Amino acid sequence: MPFPASAVSPPLHDGDQLAAVDIGSNSFHMVVARYTLGQLRVVDRLRETVRMADGLDGKGGISSAARQRGLECLARFGQRIRDIPSLRVRALATNTVRQLSSPQSFLVPAETALGHAIEVVSGREEARLIYLGVAHAQPPKSGQLRLVIDIGGGSTEFIIGRGFDQIERESLQVGCIASTRRFFPGGKISKKRWKDALTEIGAEFQQFAGLYRALGWQEALGSSGTHKAIGEICAAMKLTKGAITAEALPQLRDRLLQADHIDNIQLPGLSNDRRPIIAGGVLVLEAAFEALGIQRLMVSKAAMREGILYDMLGRGSDNDPRDASVASLTQRYGIDEVQAARVESTAMRLFEQVAESWALDDDDARQLGWAARLHEIGLAVAHSQYHVHGAYLIENSDIAGFSRQEQQVLAALVRTHRRGVPKAAFDALPDRLLLSARRKAALLRLSVLLHRAHDAQPIPKLEAIGNGDSLQLVISKKWIEARPLLRADLVSEPEDMAGLGVAFRPFVD
Amino acid sequence: MPFPASAVSPPLHDGDQLAAVDIGSNSFHMVVARYTLGQLRVVDRLRETVRMADGLDGKGGISSAARQRGLECLARFGQRIRDIPSLRVRALATNTVRQLSSPQSFLVPAETALGHAIEVVSGREEARLIYLGVAHAQPPKSGQLRLVIDIGGGSTEFIIGRGFDQIERESLQVGCIASTRRFFPGGKISKKRWKDALTEIGAEFQQFAGLYRALGWQEALGSSGTHKAIGEICAAMKLTKGAITAEALPQLRDRLLQADHIDNIQLPGLSNDRRPIIAGGVLVLEAAFEALGIQRLMVSKAAMREGILYDMLGRGSDNDPRDASVASLTQRYGIDEVQAARVESTAMRLFEQVAESWALDDDDARQLGWAARLHEIGLAVAHSQYHVHGAYLIENSDIAGFSRQEQQVLAALVRTHRRGVPKAAFDALPDRLLLSARRKAALLRLSVLLHRAHDAQPIPKLEAIGNGDSLQLVISKKWIEARPLLRADLVSEPEDMAGLGVAFRPFVD
Repeated sequence: MPFPASAVSPPLHDGDQLAAVDIGSNSFHMVVARYTLGQLRVVDRLRETVRMADGLDGKGGISSAARQRGLECLARFGQRIRDIPSLRVRALATNTVRQLSSPQSFLVPAETALGHAIEVVSGREEARLIYLGVAHAQPPKSGQLRLVIDIGGGSTEFIIGRGFDQIERESLQVGCIASTRRFFPGGKISKKRWKDALTEIGAEFQQFAGLYRALGWQEALGSSGTHKAIGEICAAMKLTKGAITAEALPQLRDRLLQADHIDNIQLPGLSNDRRPIIAGGVLVLEAAFEALGIQRLMVSKAAMREGILYDMLGRGSDNDPRDASVASLTQRYGIDEVQAARVESTAMRLFEQVAESWALDDDDARQLGWAARLHEIGLAVAHSQYHVHGAYLIENSDIAGFSRQEQQVLAALVRTHRRGVPKAAFDALPDRLLLSARRKAALLRLSVLLHRAHDAQPIPKLEAIGNGDSLQLVISKKWIEARPLLRADLVSEPEDMAGLGVAFRPFVD
Repeated sequence: MPFPASAVSPPLHDGDQLAAVDIGSNSFHMVVARYTLGQLRVVDRLRETVRMADGLDGKGGISSAARQRGLECLARFGQRIRDIPSLRVRALATNTVRQLSSPQSFLVPAETALGHAIEVVSGREEARLIYLGVAHAQPPKSGQLRLVIDIGGGSTEFIIGRGFDQIERESLQVGCIASTRRFFPGGKISKKRWKDALTEIGAEFQQFAGLYRALGWQEALGSSGTHKAIGEICAAMKLTKGAITAEALPQLRDRLLQADHIDNIQLPGLSNDRRPIIAGGVLVLEAAFEALGIQRLMVSKAAMREGILYDMLGRGSDNDPRDASVASLTQRYGIDEVQAARVESTAMRLFEQVAESWALDDDDARQLGWAARLHEIGLAVAHSQYHVHGAYLIENSDIAGFSRQEQQVLAALVRTHRRGVPKAAFDALPDRLLLSARRKAALLRLSVLLHRAHDAQPIPKLEAIGNGDSLQLVISKKWIEARPLLRADLVSEPEDMAGLGVAFRPFVD
């Protein structure tokens, strides 16, 4: 029982709308789809060139102009999806927001502008969603291996998969905006600069290229605006019919080098919008062709935004990709699953009783369940301070299907599931998640405490009442009297739980 | 090839002396043994009641009196082992030194007093050495499970093993000095205090008791001075012939309770030396009997000091327990062993060339080898910043056979094997290890860099010259010209390596 029936996501009905927003380093995308007869049909697409990455100062700050462009775009997007319930909107930010030293200072006004929550995803999670989007748009031939590349403004993703399954995912801090700024400062292009840049990017790609070459693939697809633009140039130059090939790419590069300066670039099929960043895009793609020995790359129209949509269908269902990720962590770190299941079951028992009064929803139920399954993960590192090690692993691991914020919530729950609650434990979370995170932490603490004996004895009576900041627990007098250690734990618990802002009172009955 | 033949530990010869020093929370022990015909024969034992834990202030500080007692004892021990080569002396500090916020401020003068290096070990490593000592002193019956308990001044260890193999190891922050101070402040003993204390200690033991009971054991042994004292009291009271039983223990406890105050304790067979801390010892043992359902515990005369001696025989041999631990980490975290072996092999090639001029010994060779085997461990967490994650795992994991300092050295090597070298990377290390650690880090960096392509191509020419702070590397011109990426890496390497205090210069030939 992963979470109680009462907390299962409201199922989709025919006619329901879903929206995915991709807050990228170069452009922002939004796609709105309608759910009909078990299928998603795209009903609207919006794209704006925001070029957020242009405003990065390399020290974690961003120019107010770039920030303003981003907020204005999100306000326009927000208008379109004002009436879609928040449950059905997922907005994800990628590399540029990952670079910010204080992401909240952008995310808080951004969420207000959009009217929906925004999450940050890691590069590998971005890669997962890109592959998912491409796989749905161009269903893979069965058994064939496929390479997907996405050159973004700030990062580039490489994925190898078979069918809908992903085998390898990489995300590197190399993008078309960042590379244009870095290698062609002032807009000057030269043979020497190009060669040096290829060497440096090649060195980055070297770390995974051997593995990818060894795996191999039958078809390669490029999924970003950069690929679309390069494919269109290749076609306009009559080099190909829209694909990008190992023969065509150098000719395109030579034309770029002739331009001498970015402002002078003239290529058939190139839009004015794309001109300022095409050099970086061709550069990264040439490095990728060299490192991986690519001969031919098809252009896919799908990208992360479609992946987000299809991922939303899975979230909350029996095929939630996050369940698989939690199961894989359980296995890797050898977590005692029986104990984890006991704690999870009690956590869900408590959850059902307080969910309404504490305004906890089905997402909260799922997170509490995952935290229960993972709370002992740090024991694989060391017994002493294992809650600290567990929080470190959860916060820093690439966990497929989870956004950064979701991982930070899980990490905070694991961090505070035993011993004292440090003041800074919830600092990484946005304010809007704070109250529910503390309440989930209180439920997890209590569940762990009740099962501290690690035995299979069921808990006969367990009544929980959540009321504002207070949490009352009623347990059987007879049962607790036979357990002096548990009673001692319960007596000292209110002090620790005060650190969560929860006034805890245990009663016996 | 774990490390080059030239760097294998000098083998023991008949007549060689070995010494083990146990810097405990209650007493310091030293045992000197002579190696004859493949066996160790103890030729000297020293023990002093230092009661270091008495000086702890609970905030990581220690009283100057306790510190002084410790240093004076070590100076006396040092006199006895002045002529034993450092290679043959191993001095380990346990819980009290683990509690210090600034262990170096004790360890530096302590090493001077002893005339040998002192390492700190984790509680679980302490447990491993205790079991090893007991197993050698009282060879276990084949196939039988054995429980070993050691109640120290500051911590208590519980181990279950079969033969010489250990199955479970626990170390808890509960010791006879700490418990006496905590539960009987002012020396006052009462029934209520005793009961409350049992509940609290019981709660601590609960976390592993279920697992231990489920495993079970055929015989239980207690290995510390506390057990020896309690066994002697049981015998003097004619309750047993020296064993400690579930019937005898409560009678002993009742006699303690009658005393009302620690100063008034009168028990047959109890030494004056042990009186001030016997109450805490009986308390911890009663809690252990209750939590684990122990019926009968035999007293073993062996303890960690003997374990250290036997462990020294293994260290540097083909059965070095640290090799097994590194192999187990390799497996758990799914490290690419082929790549690790390439890096290790190149590291050893470089090591052999600079070992003499850089004053690196066989211990350094081993550490460099382990760091090479583990350098990619953090990839299991995430690709981004994997060297940071790797260092975290190595520094915080319980790794059997390693002292804290050894783990800190490995963590520093892994932390600095790529990217920039942070100023604080070596801060945890004692000064005496600093220079060699930085030099090993330089060799590891270089080996990783040379294999960054992750391919199987051998490196034809590789000449390294270490000279003071400078490291020169000569590689084949033809070979490097075919590898522009590697050349670019080598060009930027001196800047990073300066962070290690090494002036690196690559040459082609």
